[in-house]
Amino acid sequence: MERTCGNGTLRKSDAGKKVTLIGWVAKRRNLGSLVFIDLRDRSGIVQVTFDETMAEKVKDVRNEYILQVKGTVTERGQANPKLETGEIEVLAEEVTIVNRAETAPIDISDDTATNEDTRLKYRYLDLRRPSLQKIMMLRHRVCMTARRVLDEKGFVEIETPILARSTPEGARDYLVPSRIYNGRFWALPQSPQIYKQLLMIAGMEKYFQIARCFRDEDLRADRQPEFTQIDIEMSFGDEDTIFGVVEDLMKAIFKDTIGYDLEDRFVRIPYAECIRRFGSDKPDLRFGNEIQDLTPLFENTEFQVFRSVIDNGGLISALHFENCADKYSRKTIDKLQDFVKHGFKAKALAWLKMENGALAGSVAKPLSETEKQAVIEKLNMKDNDIVFIIADSMKVANAALGALRVRLAKELGLVEEGVYKFLWVTDFPMFEYSEEEDRWVAAHHPFTAIKEEDLDKLFSDPEHVSSRAYDLVLNGYELLSGSIRIHDQDLQEKVFEAIGLTMEKAKERFGFFLDAFRYGTPPHGGVGIGLERLVMVLAGTDNIRDVVAFPTTNSSLDLMSEAPNVVDQAQLDILGIKLAEDNKE
Amino acid sequence: MERTCGNGTLRKSDAGKKVTLIGWVAKRRNLGSLVFIDLRDRSGIVQVTFDETMAEKVKDVRNEYILQVKGTVTERGQANPKLETGEIEVLAEEVTIVNRAETAPIDISDDTATNEDTRLKYRYLDLRRPSLQKIMMLRHRVCMTARRVLDEKGFVEIETPILARSTPEGARDYLVPSRIYNGRFWALPQSPQIYKQLLMIAGMEKYFQIARCFRDEDLRADRQPEFTQIDIEMSFGDEDTIFGVVEDLMKAIFKDTIGYDLEDRFVRIPYAECIRRFGSDKPDLRFGNEIQDLTPLFENTEFQVFRSVIDNGGLISALHFENCADKYSRKTIDKLQDFVKHGFKAKALAWLKMENGALAGSVAKPLSETEKQAVIEKLNMKDNDIVFIIADSMKVANAALGALRVRLAKELGLVEEGVYKFLWVTDFPMFEYSEEEDRWVAAHHPFTAIKEEDLDKLFSDPEHVSSRAYDLVLNGYELLSGSIRIHDQDLQEKVFEAIGLTMEKAKERFGFFLDAFRYGTPPHGGVGIGLERLVMVLAGTDNIRDVVAFPTTNSSLDLMSEAPNVVDQAQLDILGIKLAEDNKE
Repeated sequence: MERTCGNGTLRKSDAGKKVTLIGWVAKRRNLGSLVFIDLRDRSGIVQVTFDETMAEKVKDVRNEYILQVKGTVTERGQANPKLETGEIEVLAEEVTIVNRAETAPIDISDDTATNEDTRLKYRYLDLRRPSLQKIMMLRHRVCMTARRVLDEKGFVEIETPILARSTPEGARDYLVPSRIYNGRFWALPQSPQIYKQLLMIAGMEKYFQIARCFRDEDLRADRQPEFTQIDIEMSFGDEDTIFGVVEDLMKAIFKDTIGYDLEDRFVRIPYAECIRRFGSDKPDLRFGNEIQDLTPLFENTEFQVFRSVIDNGGLISALHFENCADKYSRKTIDKLQDFVKHGFKAKALAWLKMENGALAGSVAKPLSETEKQAVIEKLNMKDNDIVFIIADSMKVANAALGALRVRLAKELGLVEEGVYKFLWVTDFPMFEYSEEEDRWVAAHHPFTAIKEEDLDKLFSDPEHVSSRAYDLVLNGYELLSGSIRIHDQDLQEKVFEAIGLTMEKAKERFGFFLDAFRYGTPPHGGVGIGLERLVMVLAGTDNIRDVVAFPTTNSSLDLMSEAPNVVDQAQLDILGIKLAEDNKE
Repeated sequence: MERTCGNGTLRKSDAGKKVTLIGWVAKRRNLGSLVFIDLRDRSGIVQVTFDETMAEKVKDVRNEYILQVKGTVTERGQANPKLETGEIEVLAEEVTIVNRAETAPIDISDDTATNEDTRLKYRYLDLRRPSLQKIMMLRHRVCMTARRVLDEKGFVEIETPILARSTPEGARDYLVPSRIYNGRFWALPQSPQIYKQLLMIAGMEKYFQIARCFRDEDLRADRQPEFTQIDIEMSFGDEDTIFGVVEDLMKAIFKDTIGYDLEDRFVRIPYAECIRRFGSDKPDLRFGNEIQDLTPLFENTEFQVFRSVIDNGGLISALHFENCADKYSRKTIDKLQDFVKHGFKAKALAWLKMENGALAGSVAKPLSETEKQAVIEKLNMKDNDIVFIIADSMKVANAALGALRVRLAKELGLVEEGVYKFLWVTDFPMFEYSEEEDRWVAAHHPFTAIKEEDLDKLFSDPEHVSSRAYDLVLNGYELLSGSIRIHDQDLQEKVFEAIGLTMEKAKERFGFFLDAFRYGTPPHGGVGIGLERLVMVLAGTDNIRDVVAFPTTNSSLDLMSEAPNVVDQAQLDILGIKLAEDNKE
């Protein structure tokens, strides 16, 4: 079917050209004897004008009809600034109706306010929206660039199985009953973790895969039952090598897709420092306003609230915001009180404003003049500055102020748009205490290597053993996590012991995977990058469904095909399974 | 971990260079006080020599240990022609044992004769074999090239769901029980067919995906439960456009991976002609020896066997092979008799040899001199030529001679190695009669477009309606199949009617998919290319497990991870399913 160019590509410089276009009718207007049709294809929209003689041929044409038009590109009298092609129109000379369309059940335009569920039901129509099509092409471009960069660096893409073995750790697996071996099940992989480590043992040295992963979790707004990971693993490298690969990858992706130049190397901050400064292991570095520890200023305080917190080993922590005190009335601050109390179990939120060279506010009275002066000096406070203070345990103070920091920065417009601040968070704790299981468990996974200098704390002080796990954080989002893995069998046994797992039990659980480590395992490590999150950031959307061609709802339903659905009893019979009595429909 | 180059990359021109290598010990030999170690990495193997002073340091080193070696590249006195690096060796000056290894349970070399099941159990070791590593890299290269070519042509890769809706047609689906909606199931897609057509309706115009597909079939030797397809769909194109894309794709892949120049455009042969000439819809064109229809020569024959076949509408068909009659003794021909009788239900295999200017053989006597002379002339037979004849129904004669043609060509060494002959088979029949269901069914699928000129035969003569389905055949293998799809609703309804499906029933079956066609569907079509088959051809292997990183056995078991496996009752409980009584282990 002939076509000379994309509709959205026409510009003033094309005036005079004869073109043949194909596209969907996005809009149709009649003006006297003239008919104007906005013709949409993947490249964009152009206005086609049908004069008196041509108008007859399109008199029955309605929205979403497909037309083939031959005509001449002409400069418009009055440009339409809303269209990229707005300086020209195409005067139709021939027209063919390629296919007809019934009235679409949703409005196909980016101004649409149609309810999301309806749009998901008609996803194939919603995907005609130029903004969604652009995101699909952006996602493609991200993957193309990722593959190019990794290939150039000697990484080999290897497909690992989707029909895999169920593993007992982590999130819930999706299960697939086996027809040939009734009573047994495959599991869909939560990530290619085990396979990629096996590929290192197999000597592939540098592996990647843009891999589909599955987690049967109750969905949060930014999750889908299946998602995609740029999965990377390499042998003989360390953090520097792996970070270098990822940094080069990100630089290329940001350059190719949105023309943005990232800094050459990304900042690295150890986990503990990160928590101390930002109250979060995924801080947004687009603004400052770090958490300030004011505890030393109150060592001798007589203010009972602070006194008792300090005596109990807690902190007096603060967030300082400049020149905005006038924006925080008591009523506004009350809302922030609720936020830290209900969201983070903080006992209270104190505050001080600088007014005419002196501090006023909720704790202005109980604090001594010397203490207030110390606060002013420590934070270098100026008129109309405000400081929020939480006196609480370190954990509560950090969590509450970390969240408050982000909220206030957003409210105050301190978050620079169009800026991308990357950060490596390193030295994550190896273990965390599971109240549920009443034992130390691996915070990342039990194959994560630990810092050599922390080896002697493995049993005496597991809380303070740092792992060689790391995250890459972008503008407050965790974009990837990864680690250097254990390749030494003795260390692996010790780590299992530390989490209360005998080698026997470990073998029961991880069987063949542990066996594999006996035959010459190279030092190795890697990362898994969340593709959807990356594309969301690049596309500037907060809705994960904008970056997935055929997404499910938050309640894990595909409204378009109405899946999951009921299947025939015969299909279950050959799988050797039955529905529990109360699930029969 | 420092490393200056890949082990397999060293050549005579590197002599004198200081290098740092890393790798696995592939072999170790002691020669007096010297130790020779073949050090293997992904790039290949190099010999490292440890002199008296160094030998002590590697005295405990065994196969599959990982070493880091610093040393000097030196020309060998006597080259080893078996190694690409055979003209040099590396004299070790420093060595570090990176990791140790227990004795591997399989022999890790390409000479290995270890039983395949054992190798699959230790796949992570088997994958250390240089030949398998090369195939993994080849497969990666095929995908990289495919993506580059398709991207350059404006195709956008879009990921479609793995958790999809069960469709009632075709092979069996793998089912995934839903935890949130107990009693309902997801299905793993047999191909992205429905999604890619929806993407055309969505206006994406040019889509591709290197997509995982799943079929729960009893495996044949060349199948795996999951496999990968280079899946392509485009709007506004016809066979010429689509074939052009695939031809360019294949040319680039063959050039990039094995340096082979394919012909610019591939031969096209309609299905009916293909069957007539080669007895197969996937003929191997690396040799000639087409099927010859000798029926006209015997129109007036008095040879009863031929007479009755012709009278019953059958054919006298022949295969002619030159200068090889001496290779076919009666005993050998008896085997061919068995082959066509048992494999293809042929009544008999007749034969004639040219000896001293005259025909001898099984039907030399009953045929008249004139008839024999006619055969000689028709086939231009020379001394030591042989002709095999089947007198039977067209279907039996074609099938038997088609298979015999391939067998004889292989036996006689007529199949040129290292040559790649592509062929488009077009105009497949739209319908085939299902004895089982006692009705006409769609041979490809019911969304396949039909030849416009056959429209009027839709109900009167469905057997002779040609579709716009096509296959690409390479050296006798079906590499892809595809079709132009129906985009016209009226025609779609008629096709359903022809296979005895009312629109109501069709909607019950294909529901949302048919709905989608109402809102402006572009003409579209596409292909699905079997990636494993393509890589098998390029790698020159007949074993599909050679081109899959972690394959299952023919009986659909993953011997490495021992999957599928039994899961906890608790896991089934949350899915709302139970095992049928007799499947509990």
